[in-house]
Amino acid sequence: MGKNEKQFVEEITPMEEDFSQWYTDVITKTELVDYAPIKGFMVIRPYGFALWEKIRDYADGMFKETGHQNVYFPMLIPESLLNKEAEHVEGFAPEVAWVTQGGNKVLEERLAIRPTSETIICTMYSKWLNSYRQLPFLYNQWNSVVRWEKSTRPFLRTSEFLWQEGHTLHETRQEAVDETLQQLATYKSVAEDLMAIPVIDGKKSESEKFAGADSTYTIEAMMHDGKALQSGTSHFLGQHFTKAFDITYSDREGNLANPYHTSWGISTRLIGGLIMVHSDNRGLVLPPKMAPIQLVIVPIAANKGGVMEVVDKIADELKAKGITVNVDDRENYSPGYKFNDAEMKGIPVRLEIGPRDIENNQALAFRRDELTKETISLDNIADTVEKLLEDIQTNLFNKAKKHREDNTFVAHNIDEFKDIIENKHGFAKVMWKNDDENEAKIKELTGATIRVIPFEQENLGDTCFYSGEKADNMVIFAKAY
Amino acid sequence: MGKNEKQFVEEITPMEEDFSQWYTDVITKTELVDYAPIKGFMVIRPYGFALWEKIRDYADGMFKETGHQNVYFPMLIPESLLNKEAEHVEGFAPEVAWVTQGGNKVLEERLAIRPTSETIICTMYSKWLNSYRQLPFLYNQWNSVVRWEKSTRPFLRTSEFLWQEGHTLHETRQEAVDETLQQLATYKSVAEDLMAIPVIDGKKSESEKFAGADSTYTIEAMMHDGKALQSGTSHFLGQHFTKAFDITYSDREGNLANPYHTSWGISTRLIGGLIMVHSDNRGLVLPPKMAPIQLVIVPIAANKGGVMEVVDKIADELKAKGITVNVDDRENYSPGYKFNDAEMKGIPVRLEIGPRDIENNQALAFRRDELTKETISLDNIADTVEKLLEDIQTNLFNKAKKHREDNTFVAHNIDEFKDIIENKHGFAKVMWKNDDENEAKIKELTGATIRVIPFEQENLGDTCFYSGEKADNMVIFAKAY
Repeated sequence: MGKNEKQFVEEITPMEEDFSQWYTDVITKTELVDYAPIKGFMVIRPYGFALWEKIRDYADGMFKETGHQNVYFPMLIPESLLNKEAEHVEGFAPEVAWVTQGGNKVLEERLAIRPTSETIICTMYSKWLNSYRQLPFLYNQWNSVVRWEKSTRPFLRTSEFLWQEGHTLHETRQEAVDETLQQLATYKSVAEDLMAIPVIDGKKSESEKFAGADSTYTIEAMMHDGKALQSGTSHFLGQHFTKAFDITYSDREGNLANPYHTSWGISTRLIGGLIMVHSDNRGLVLPPKMAPIQLVIVPIAANKGGVMEVVDKIADELKAKGITVNVDDRENYSPGYKFNDAEMKGIPVRLEIGPRDIENNQALAFRRDELTKETISLDNIADTVEKLLEDIQTNLFNKAKKHREDNTFVAHNIDEFKDIIENKHGFAKVMWKNDDENEAKIKELTGATIRVIPFEQENLGDTCFYSGEKADNMVIFAKAY
Repeated sequence: MGKNEKQFVEEITPMEEDFSQWYTDVITKTELVDYAPIKGFMVIRPYGFALWEKIRDYADGMFKETGHQNVYFPMLIPESLLNKEAEHVEGFAPEVAWVTQGGNKVLEERLAIRPTSETIICTMYSKWLNSYRQLPFLYNQWNSVVRWEKSTRPFLRTSEFLWQEGHTLHETRQEAVDETLQQLATYKSVAEDLMAIPVIDGKKSESEKFAGADSTYTIEAMMHDGKALQSGTSHFLGQHFTKAFDITYSDREGNLANPYHTSWGISTRLIGGLIMVHSDNRGLVLPPKMAPIQLVIVPIAANKGGVMEVVDKIADELKAKGITVNVDDRENYSPGYKFNDAEMKGIPVRLEIGPRDIENNQALAFRRDELTKETISLDNIADTVEKLLEDIQTNLFNKAKKHREDNTFVAHNIDEFKDIIENKHGFAKVMWKNDDENEAKIKELTGATIRVIPFEQENLGDTCFYSGEKADNMVIFAKAY
């Protein structure tokens, strides 16, 4: 290990020592994000924003394939609109930022910076919708929202964050439920297929659902420290908002009807999940499909005749395969420094190529996920690297899944439950009789909440681990971000 | 002309009758945009947002090709930061929306919703920059900004609008000037190559430049009514902000230096320009490169055997060429209604295909730009359509350019000038001696301002048309949106 390398590694607090500090070190020292001059707000730097672009482009492609179109609604919402749906305003009013002055004048009505856009969107939908022929409305927007949070952490919980919010209207309840589930499946694909983050999909309990929803569906992931991260939610809103906002249309029989309604969102908090699922004490670990740079080539003895020619030729071959490549030809930096820099940044593969390698028609390939090196032939190197990247993507997913499985435990009683949450720091899988009060008691006792009622149910027994009554479902309890 | 068709055409007020109402009719009846419940705010509907996506994707591609990366800065800016650069705060303070309450508490300091982000970005740049090795900073963000406007019109001037703002730092003045001009050239390409809007590029006069800039460069387009639209601006900011925000770095000689600074932006107002340059009394006219749907096929007697098979086959052939196609197979709508609908929406080409056409191995192709029909063979139809689309794109650019040339006149004295502005409703091309006071007088007298000091200068004489003094430049005066 070179001098520079060591120096860098020491800069990141080991996660075993202080997980929270490790997270902060990784996201700030790799220049993903910085703290803004206003408490609770973040600046997303180029390397961090490139990760958001990967998520956005992938999800947006799937939205469009499934018939959705993008729109843009105003960021400001009059207080009177926010107040129209009772549960909704109760859920969001405490965290609203209010505009009270515009252009040197005090406004007659306060305007909320959107914490979410159901109310403004329903106001317009009410104006636009007349006939069943226009349905469904399948609209989405990419924007930022503001929720005045007391305790914040970059990506995971910030007073402003970037997200997308889809808002759809449908003729029938079934179509709206199908849409809700389809979008959840899209989010699962974003997490698993793009980000290599295994998730548990299912339903939220009554006390954890969205303010104003009939039911909320979620994907939940396990972080390195055994806590859960809610990684995307899709809400079946029934007719709550369409009635409150008087959205009506003339149906197939010529009667006036209220449509069914969904909304769904993923946000920049997914980037926090990406860090806490894959990264390590050396810095970022990025799945190849998420990596802004998939491979770095570090020339060794670059000034020796012929090295840069071979390096450039290989870079071109790789680029022709669609692999994003950076040749680190910076002068005044040692190979050791460059190795470390690339590791910090989570670049999936590093190729080292020097004069002796060229003589032997080979290169040294370093895998960031396993920290292993192997010699590969320069013949068909693009094919070899492509396979290697696929393997890394799969390996990261499998490692994360194994971590979750290894840290998920069945609890049959409250003592086992407390042991799982407090000592084993894992997910507690239990049989559960739905009961808001008991859920609240457990939260107060242990800090754990029901993260998800998984679609994939197992029968662990007939009675609720807590109340001893007949169980309704198997559920997952955990502490959460 | 069918009944439905006529009915539609009458819905749009002819531009000769009332240009402003024509504009409003076109943008609202084609469902590009709607008015939000807050005065001065707009909702961008799917068809309108699709136009913005075309602009964004094209520009973003060029930004990235020239080495820029995207970032995201907070939407809220503390008042104290906004106040740091004197000219800047003077320019923007009167139109700021202020957040004074967050999470049920009154804030200690008012927060501005960004009217533009120089101040917050410079605050962070000051933190990030240490050494000349880090330069240049080439960052951009796509976001929304709020400027409390008294008089608004969708796309052209709204209290919230979507835009991008690039903010760069450079070692030398020359590099920053080069960047400023390079980005102006990018905007010219967006306008001309993508949107078929011819623009005049050049510099702004002192009184029209950005608040806090050394110099502002602009692209200006002529609308149907002879008014100008500022379609993109690029600012060389010198060291105003880098000094005010104490952005310093250690230069190549080891001395502390302030970098040079640029910012540049285009916004959703470009969509307003697109309408007012190309559209007509039937509705939208979209250049093929901007059209979300480039070609519509209207089957005639679709229920006759074989028609839909041929239509679908042609649609597939066209799609394989990368042409975006819509087959309008809606039942219960007459061909006449469909023709009109496609014309309103500005779809560049309409193909009509019926049983007799199929017998003759042909289709009828209607061009939206010229309102002409021609018979084309079904053999190699994708090649024919591709050529047709290219031809339409070029034709729209040429028509717009001819309109601008036909309505640009030289003025040698104030009477000729007033005649051009007030009667001919055109651009006045004049020799000018730089003088803020005279510029203000002319504005008061005629409503016209200096839109641009074109890069491409002509010598129309030696003396200023207004003061009679020795002229500095040829400039373009016009009324503007």
